[in-house]
Amino acid sequence: MANILLLIALITGLISILAAIYFTVIVMRKDRGNEKMIEVSGYIETGAKSFLKVQYLVLGIFVLVLFIVILLFLPSKMTGHEVPILVGILNWQQAVAYLIGSGASMFAGYLGLIVGVKTNTRAAQGVTKGIKEGFDIAFFGGSVMGLAVVGVALLGVGGIYWIFAPTLGIEQATQIVLGFSFGASGIALFMKCGGGIYTKTADVGADLVGKAEYNLPEDDVRNPATIADNVGDNVGDIAGMGSDLLDSYVASIVAAMILGTTVLAAAGVRPDFVILPILLSSAGLIASLIGIFLIKYFGRDNPGKSLNMGTYLATVLFAGFAAIIIAIMISQIPSSITGSALKVTIWKYWKDYIAVVLGLLSGIVIGWTSDYYTREDKKPTKTIAHAAEEGHAVVVLSGIAYGLQSVVLPAAGIIVAMAVSFILDGVFGVAMAAVGMLAIVGTIVSNDAYGPIVDNSRAIAEQGGLGEDIIRKADTLDSAGNTAKAITKGFAIGAANLAVLALLFSFIQEAGIVSIDLLSVKVLIGAFIGVIIPALFSALLILSVQKNAAKMVKEIRRQFTENPGILEGTEPADFNRTIAIATKGALRELILPSVISIVTPILVGVIFGVASLGAFLAGAILSGFVFAIFMSNSGGSFDNAKKWIEDGNLGGKGTETHKAAITGDTVGDPLKDTAGPSINTLLVVMSLTASMFMGLLAKISSGQGILHDAWFKIEGIDNQYVWIIIVILVAAIALGILFWVIIKFARSKNIFQKILKKE
Amino acid sequence: MANILLLIALITGLISILAAIYFTVIVMRKDRGNEKMIEVSGYIETGAKSFLKVQYLVLGIFVLVLFIVILLFLPSKMTGHEVPILVGILNWQQAVAYLIGSGASMFAGYLGLIVGVKTNTRAAQGVTKGIKEGFDIAFFGGSVMGLAVVGVALLGVGGIYWIFAPTLGIEQATQIVLGFSFGASGIALFMKCGGGIYTKTADVGADLVGKAEYNLPEDDVRNPATIADNVGDNVGDIAGMGSDLLDSYVASIVAAMILGTTVLAAAGVRPDFVILPILLSSAGLIASLIGIFLIKYFGRDNPGKSLNMGTYLATVLFAGFAAIIIAIMISQIPSSITGSALKVTIWKYWKDYIAVVLGLLSGIVIGWTSDYYTREDKKPTKTIAHAAEEGHAVVVLSGIAYGLQSVVLPAAGIIVAMAVSFILDGVFGVAMAAVGMLAIVGTIVSNDAYGPIVDNSRAIAEQGGLGEDIIRKADTLDSAGNTAKAITKGFAIGAANLAVLALLFSFIQEAGIVSIDLLSVKVLIGAFIGVIIPALFSALLILSVQKNAAKMVKEIRRQFTENPGILEGTEPADFNRTIAIATKGALRELILPSVISIVTPILVGVIFGVASLGAFLAGAILSGFVFAIFMSNSGGSFDNAKKWIEDGNLGGKGTETHKAAITGDTVGDPLKDTAGPSINTLLVVMSLTASMFMGLLAKISSGQGILHDAWFKIEGIDNQYVWIIIVILVAAIALGILFWVIIKFARSKNIFQKILKKE
Repeated sequence: MANILLLIALITGLISILAAIYFTVIVMRKDRGNEKMIEVSGYIETGAKSFLKVQYLVLGIFVLVLFIVILLFLPSKMTGHEVPILVGILNWQQAVAYLIGSGASMFAGYLGLIVGVKTNTRAAQGVTKGIKEGFDIAFFGGSVMGLAVVGVALLGVGGIYWIFAPTLGIEQATQIVLGFSFGASGIALFMKCGGGIYTKTADVGADLVGKAEYNLPEDDVRNPATIADNVGDNVGDIAGMGSDLLDSYVASIVAAMILGTTVLAAAGVRPDFVILPILLSSAGLIASLIGIFLIKYFGRDNPGKSLNMGTYLATVLFAGFAAIIIAIMISQIPSSITGSALKVTIWKYWKDYIAVVLGLLSGIVIGWTSDYYTREDKKPTKTIAHAAEEGHAVVVLSGIAYGLQSVVLPAAGIIVAMAVSFILDGVFGVAMAAVGMLAIVGTIVSNDAYGPIVDNSRAIAEQGGLGEDIIRKADTLDSAGNTAKAITKGFAIGAANLAVLALLFSFIQEAGIVSIDLLSVKVLIGAFIGVIIPALFSALLILSVQKNAAKMVKEIRRQFTENPGILEGTEPADFNRTIAIATKGALRELILPSVISIVTPILVGVIFGVASLGAFLAGAILSGFVFAIFMSNSGGSFDNAKKWIEDGNLGGKGTETHKAAITGDTVGDPLKDTAGPSINTLLVVMSLTASMFMGLLAKISSGQGILHDAWFKIEGIDNQYVWIIIVILVAAIALGILFWVIIKFARSKNIFQKILKKE
Repeated sequence: MANILLLIALITGLISILAAIYFTVIVMRKDRGNEKMIEVSGYIETGAKSFLKVQYLVLGIFVLVLFIVILLFLPSKMTGHEVPILVGILNWQQAVAYLIGSGASMFAGYLGLIVGVKTNTRAAQGVTKGIKEGFDIAFFGGSVMGLAVVGVALLGVGGIYWIFAPTLGIEQATQIVLGFSFGASGIALFMKCGGGIYTKTADVGADLVGKAEYNLPEDDVRNPATIADNVGDNVGDIAGMGSDLLDSYVASIVAAMILGTTVLAAAGVRPDFVILPILLSSAGLIASLIGIFLIKYFGRDNPGKSLNMGTYLATVLFAGFAAIIIAIMISQIPSSITGSALKVTIWKYWKDYIAVVLGLLSGIVIGWTSDYYTREDKKPTKTIAHAAEEGHAVVVLSGIAYGLQSVVLPAAGIIVAMAVSFILDGVFGVAMAAVGMLAIVGTIVSNDAYGPIVDNSRAIAEQGGLGEDIIRKADTLDSAGNTAKAITKGFAIGAANLAVLALLFSFIQEAGIVSIDLLSVKVLIGAFIGVIIPALFSALLILSVQKNAAKMVKEIRRQFTENPGILEGTEPADFNRTIAIATKGALRELILPSVISIVTPILVGVIFGVASLGAFLAGAILSGFVFAIFMSNSGGSFDNAKKWIEDGNLGGKGTETHKAAITGDTVGDPLKDTAGPSINTLLVVMSLTASMFMGLLAKISSGQGILHDAWFKIEGIDNQYVWIIIVILVAAIALGILFWVIIKFARSKNIFQKILKKE
């Protein structure tokens, strides 16, 4: 029976992908509008494709290298904790799962992004028939990403488990699934950091010169960075956010599965707890699907309400479906289990159910707190807007202070969810809360992907000359996207946090760590390094945006100076060059952060041992949460304070107050769209790296770290690890040199430009 | 012999205070300059006194309440872990030590501040005779604070130990010393937060209206906030920084003493390890004293070089003196210890010596990294200055990013110091590193107090009409102060961090915590709350500054509007009102942060137990370090980027670039002078609160937290704790209401204004 349920889950995943294709077809059949609109949309599509092309090219190398590392060096459980190459075997199952995970993430990103950029002009044209029509098109276009993400995740996780569990057993099957998760996350990190840098390079560049210096309106086609800006919205919010939530989603399921393998319930039901996370996730998918299909019947002319109604519907439906699944699972408890063992097992199911619902609710609550801190009709954003009256510096300080303050409530949400679900069912309970929070991720990603589509639609309506009335209608759609986005952003951070906590527990369990004792200085050092990483990571991303934006600014000024016809509107701006700057910059600048996210946990583990690595992860998770919420909320608040002023408050556009608010918004941009959201993915990747490399770390040292081994000359440790360290170091250096050479070469031969020009 | 050494340490403390008085007399004999200068200096002095009066009034109540709590409710070791009032005794020794600690801190603050504000006009007048004369006066005036701090600390710690150790034994004596430390830190928190809010309220207010709106030059006497601004420099940098370092200094000594009580060396030498921290600190004091006396012979006309030479001299001397003390201690090892026990003991002394020197060196290194990140001729600050060319937002982003990045190197310094000293001699080694780092604190505080004095001198030279040439010379003195300040700030944060780490270890040891295991969700929650506190605390302080600065801005505008004679220079500005706003605001706004710092650790301990409290402290220490360094360095960097532009680079004053740099500076101001440095004191107070209330917490619950007890209905736990919790809650609420009523009352009767007017 359990297998049949698993099969149903797989079918649900398939249905989700089919639904994504169905929506794609529906949207593609819609009218693309006038010639100008098609032209502009074409530019955006080309830009998005060239971003993907360059990214996927480099990602290919990255994936290949890691594939080889996993294949040859990483001991998974099935190899008896031996380093494969040293005992003449291959860790092929996990390596292939890694490839599939990478591929699945790339596929979902590709599909979602391409459909997204094809939808914008159609939604703009739809608005001419009415807000409702425009909304439906945009929402269906966005839901392609949401459905694709959930579909590939469920198919991947469920399928891999389904294939390997019968022959290799549940422990080994979950380890292989871990490989899938690692693959999905690696891609997510690239997409999120790269997308985040891209979008803000273009946005900041377009704003600083176009808007501030030349007073061009938003989305003016004379602004050479305007297309890059539109591409950026898609790249950052569709591809980036989609892969971010995909990796949290998969990670929560995998963590729960791994923790499920040691569930102490009566024998015979253990495998059922391992697949429970998959089943619950498929229940969430069905709930999301129904919500997405029914969304057109809600709210009618109030798109913001429709989006939120869809979320709440999915929430309620999921709570119901999950109860049904629990009831079915209970009905399937083997009859050999009786008496108190039966009672305990039944109770365990219901306690996990409560944890799931609790996770779901706390996700919503965290979303609300983000909403409160970023909504223009609430105190924080109003205060920030008023602070703009005092000048540039005061508005910035306000936003920073409220952003820092806004960490408290979501943290309380996470703490309560974690504490109660732990009391209910230990670490497995916490993992189930994470699964519950992420169950309706299909809806969340759909809502989020809707945002950039309508943002682009507005731009296309403007550039296609559809007139003031249509642009105003498109604005309505756009602002609904912003409202939904505030909630989904908070949700994404909360969900990622709970997922990585679950992942931390599963890492600890798998590594057989019996204590992560802060009384040990080694462990304290691990925690210290962990706490610093999110700060360093954010700093690097902000500096990247700044560096690239400076190049963008220079290029825009150059175009305006060398070709005055652009400003007069008689000659077209050169969009390709600005797109190339954003694309190249994003790629170059994401390398260091990515390397940090993979290399640091390995180094901490090698040098200080696995317990210290656990503390490293815990430190990074906690401080990462603070930085992610701070940056995301202060950025959102700056944004809406500016919009509130632009709506005519405090003097409206063009005043000194407005200029100060723009400063706030520009400061907030890389915080909320680059650094803040990338931290989620950073945490997931670091946690997964720890889980993946743990076996190797245990081989390398006594698990106490090489410092410890060297110092205490532990008996029984042979010098095998010295060789492995050398291999790793050589591999790392080789990898670094390879990257360096490729990029140097590509730059010297202008390959990036050629790739971009070919489009 | 050990007792004779201790007596010598006490005498050293006394000498230090005598030296402070000697310097006071020397400075007071100097010429006060012309009438205008005396008038301006008088204003500043009055302002500083009224700040102290209001602060000390409220502090008195605060100290009294805590005195009663300690006396009646806190079990110290000597009461056999019983709650005093319940067994009919009084914890009088610790309570009195607490009073003495508070008094000592208040005395040092008073003396240092008053001498500081009396020195400024004399130093200004001194400059007319030459830079050297001005420097000597300013430096001697500043060293009064440095010497007073170290003197009262050594006298207090050494004296209390000397009195109680013979009769009560070393464990109990160190507990009483802990009371002294708690007293000193409570005052430090008020002075630091209050001073920080005061100084930035005045500074931001003066800049936003006076400089930005009316283009008045710095220190223009027509600016109504200019006196408050000058008072603020003293209040923040002399009183604030002095008490900050005083509390780190005392905390490091106390932590090392407590950890010294369990040193496992051969019996008979244990007490020697307890007094070792005191002896080493007195060696540091002598080194500082020599440095201070000799400083006039260095550098001659290069004041910046003189200050640094003094620091390096003190460093080298201390390393030598410390070696002598170690050698003496070794020579005093009782002859009953022989063979391998003797070898171990000797080795232990030398290992501790290495830890001490390591701590000292890493303090210097951390100072250098702050210097690098904030110096105008280094890359970060230059990049930030260039970012100002791109506008307000870009300069702010740059500063934030570099500030975040600047955390890495100092953290590495702390980690190396901690790791190596731990390897050398366990947690006692770490504490000794903290003692070493703080040993030359007399020099550090003196250098720091020099800053505001010369800053004020410059203002007085300007307002006293001493002419361009003298003002330029005063500028030279001022900029030397800024250079020294960058180093001392980084140093202060590093030192505080290492001191609280040592304090954490001593808390853990005293609480008998055998593990702080992050695998326990309770502990993880403790760490989570801890990580958030510094963020919340910073947010509150920044918002406070903003709120007060807004009031200040309104008042300045009001004065200019209602009394146009002020701007024309025909009528004097009303300094009293601006001073009153800064004073009242600082007092009102520091209450919430102070309450947080004392209440949160107690609540975490009560609810989740002592292990969780340990994790809470660890989390707060790590994230506090990140926030403190980030805020301090980005603020310093903004400041110097602005100054670099004002020196004529990138177009110089008055350009758009300069305006953007001013925005950066204004953003950085509350970060570097209010929030950032207050975090140090927050951490010390929280750690000491944990240590002080630990006995009570253990009484209240099984030490596992009331949640745990309630959940598991632990046997053997009676309901006594319920009553104690009620007492505490009632006391806390009563305390809150008392504060509320007092402030309401004082406000309604305009008592603050009356106090201020009387001056």
